[in-house]
Amino acid sequence: MTMNADTAAPGSSARTRLRRQPEKAVTDSGTLCGILDAGLVGHLSVADETGQPYVLPVAYARYQDTVLFHGSAASRLFRLCAAGAPVCFTVTLLDGLVLARSAFESSMDYRSVLVLGHCCVLHGQTKLAALERISERLMPGRWKEIRPPSARELQATAVLELPLTQCSAKVSAGGPQDDPADVGLPVWAGTVPLNESWCDPVPAADLAPEFSSVPDYVRRWRR
Amino acid sequence: MTMNADTAAPGSSARTRLRRQPEKAVTDSGTLCGILDAGLVGHLSVADETGQPYVLPVAYARYQDTVLFHGSAASRLFRLCAAGAPVCFTVTLLDGLVLARSAFESSMDYRSVLVLGHCCVLHGQTKLAALERISERLMPGRWKEIRPPSARELQATAVLELPLTQCSAKVSAGGPQDDPADVGLPVWAGTVPLNESWCDPVPAADLAPEFSSVPDYVRRWRR
Repeated sequence: MTMNADTAAPGSSARTRLRRQPEKAVTDSGTLCGILDAGLVGHLSVADETGQPYVLPVAYARYQDTVLFHGSAASRLFRLCAAGAPVCFTVTLLDGLVLARSAFESSMDYRSVLVLGHCCVLHGQTKLAALERISERLMPGRWKEIRPPSARELQATAVLELPLTQCSAKVSAGGPQDDPADVGLPVWAGTVPLNESWCDPVPAADLAPEFSSVPDYVRRWRR
Repeated sequence: MTMNADTAAPGSSARTRLRRQPEKAVTDSGTLCGILDAGLVGHLSVADETGQPYVLPVAYARYQDTVLFHGSAASRLFRLCAAGAPVCFTVTLLDGLVLARSAFESSMDYRSVLVLGHCCVLHGQTKLAALERISERLMPGRWKEIRPPSARELQATAVLELPLTQCSAKVSAGGPQDDPADVGLPVWAGTVPLNESWCDPVPAADLAPEFSSVPDYVRRWRR
């Protein structure tokens, strides 16, 4: 049931090369980007001056060879990131539980990407474009319908860009890998896949009847 | 679309008190434990001597007022945790996308817990009991059927305990909270909930026909 993210791939370095379970390392950028593009939330970590790390869940979008995310400009952790502290950004997709015949080989199917680096703070049109990219990644079709951010709202929002230069991915799939000596044990073995899906949209309590039709672009979302 | 985990609750402290969006802070331990008990994977962070944080996805179990997790004894990051480096452990459950009328209020429904502290390394019977607790949390009913860890496997596995003394939780729910000025905009608003469910079990390629019946305890799993 071990999951390790000390993981090597595009832009890999000594610090991101997979030490544990190197057979699970993914070395093509297509797979790495595919994992990033399939996730909705990543976990961003930064340490303060005492070495205490903090981990925040963040909505994000991959754009070309960067990851974009945003948060409150007043957030202490975002300010640490903006000031150039080293960060780690990890996306994990859990695909299922792996039921092996031994406790030791019992595990999870998952895909994960780990990115190390320093964030850039975006401003002006680049900042606005990044907000649109994050929105369109998570809620495709939505941006053109909604009220864009005001100057005050933009000022309250920090948008950060993290380059995909030091990154690695790990894919664990394919079911239990029991020791040959355990294969004959009288116990079921296999995988229980986990599936994530959108449910029917729930209208806001204050939605006027004339706007109650769910937009086609929302109906088309698939997970 | 902001998600911040700089979050207050049982065992809260100045470092874990919610600074951003304090209305989302959860202050009862039942809710906090419920979030921990509903998750399957958490994100554990520790920084190295240079201040570079790393984030690992880890399977875990809450037990009483602790969180238990395990990994390879050879993992550099687990060794940093075992050596007493400060850690942060975050569990995030994503419940849906919140489609507001403005980009600024567009967001996610989620529940998250953030724990700060130092890990203890478990040994002997306590270590074995923790491994059983993690297994039974994730795969209830399984432990009694599978081969327990050998001495060599136990030696290769590090089991860590993190006390729930400095922790906080945050719950974002209830749909879009648009500014009154935006409520009349001609756009659908609401929530698109996200659901996670188990799929049909997939037998291992090397499963003997006589063991092919999926155990009842697996059939009873619900998400």
